[in-house]
Amino acid sequence: MRRFIVVGHRASTSPEFPLDDLAGGAGRMDLLLTAANAALLVSHDLRRDSEATLILLGPPDPPRTIRLEGARLQSLGPDLRANAGLVRKALAHGARVERETSPGVFAARRGLAEVLDGVRGPLVLLREDGKDIRKAEIPRDVAFVLSDAIDLTEEEGALVGTKSVAVWSVGPISVHTSDAIAVVHNEMDRRYPA
Amino acid sequence: MRRFIVVGHRASTSPEFPLDDLAGGAGRMDLLLTAANAALLVSHDLRRDSEATLILLGPPDPPRTIRLEGARLQSLGPDLRANAGLVRKALAHGARVERETSPGVFAARRGLAEVLDGVRGPLVLLREDGKDIRKAEIPRDVAFVLSDAIDLTEEEGALVGTKSVAVWSVGPISVHTSDAIAVVHNEMDRRYPA
Repeated sequence: MRRFIVVGHRASTSPEFPLDDLAGGAGRMDLLLTAANAALLVSHDLRRDSEATLILLGPPDPPRTIRLEGARLQSLGPDLRANAGLVRKALAHGARVERETSPGVFAARRGLAEVLDGVRGPLVLLREDGKDIRKAEIPRDVAFVLSDAIDLTEEEGALVGTKSVAVWSVGPISVHTSDAIAVVHNEMDRRYPA
Repeated sequence: MRRFIVVGHRASTSPEFPLDDLAGGAGRMDLLLTAANAALLVSHDLRRDSEATLILLGPPDPPRTIRLEGARLQSLGPDLRANAGLVRKALAHGARVERETSPGVFAARRGLAEVLDGVRGPLVLLREDGKDIRKAEIPRDVAFVLSDAIDLTEEEGALVGTKSVAVWSVGPISVHTSDAIAVVHNEMDRRYPA
């Protein structure tokens, strides 16, 4: 299982965030949704062995975590706007206990600390100054932590640092979250042929 | 210069295509715009040595070609909806002679044949059965041809075949256009450090 944990620092936690302004009014929700697509979609299919965990930290009611499980998803597709509808529905569930709000979509009132506590296997932080992923030994089951357009805060970095974490880089240039995920998948697809 | 030529088989050619339905009503315009972002954007900056050439073949008035030049672009950002506005403005120009409709955005009534005729350097078709890009010699100046969610038609394939074209693959799994572009950039970033 490949898990991609993406921290959305400004991502809206309102179940009524605007579908017509995912970048602005919804706090760069477009970036989280594009990252989820890179994590979960291939041409005309889903990656069943992949999961995207989106951590939404924007107003009005953070933190929220929305977990998209490739093995169970039914209605995730390339259309960001339709996927945003799944996220809005998930945000209506604000309890700490996780609930499946649509097939394969799980919601809970959780932040980065709780999400990291739930990671059992190896954890990797993707950051520009990390070890080249091509030179790293990548376990088949692994969780990657990525940030949105804003770097992890000092507090978040410290949280990650309390875990046994490897720091890797996908390449010499700092790229968008979704592009970094595409490169990770490519490297793992090469090592672990289907 | 890295050029990415993306064929959008159903992409709307109306300057009034719906901004709120890029996937459906605008004929998978979201896919073209996501591909353009992968071609042109890095974290907090543009790739100045990159260009995205979008070929729009959907109704009502195909073919149209919209060329986004990294070196001249000013207002391309991660927000697909804002970028769609640039494309709508470009579609208002329907003449064969290319015109710059916004800084770095060029429009013309041209299809794949004319676009391929304009390619002077090496041309690469990205396709699943191609040679592994990691084993290929990649020139610094190169143009890649990609399709949207639909494969190239027989006619389009024949057009590409009349050129001296290499056929490469980005990896063992067929991925979305934008993810393929991310992998190409990563490979080239490694070979040609900035």
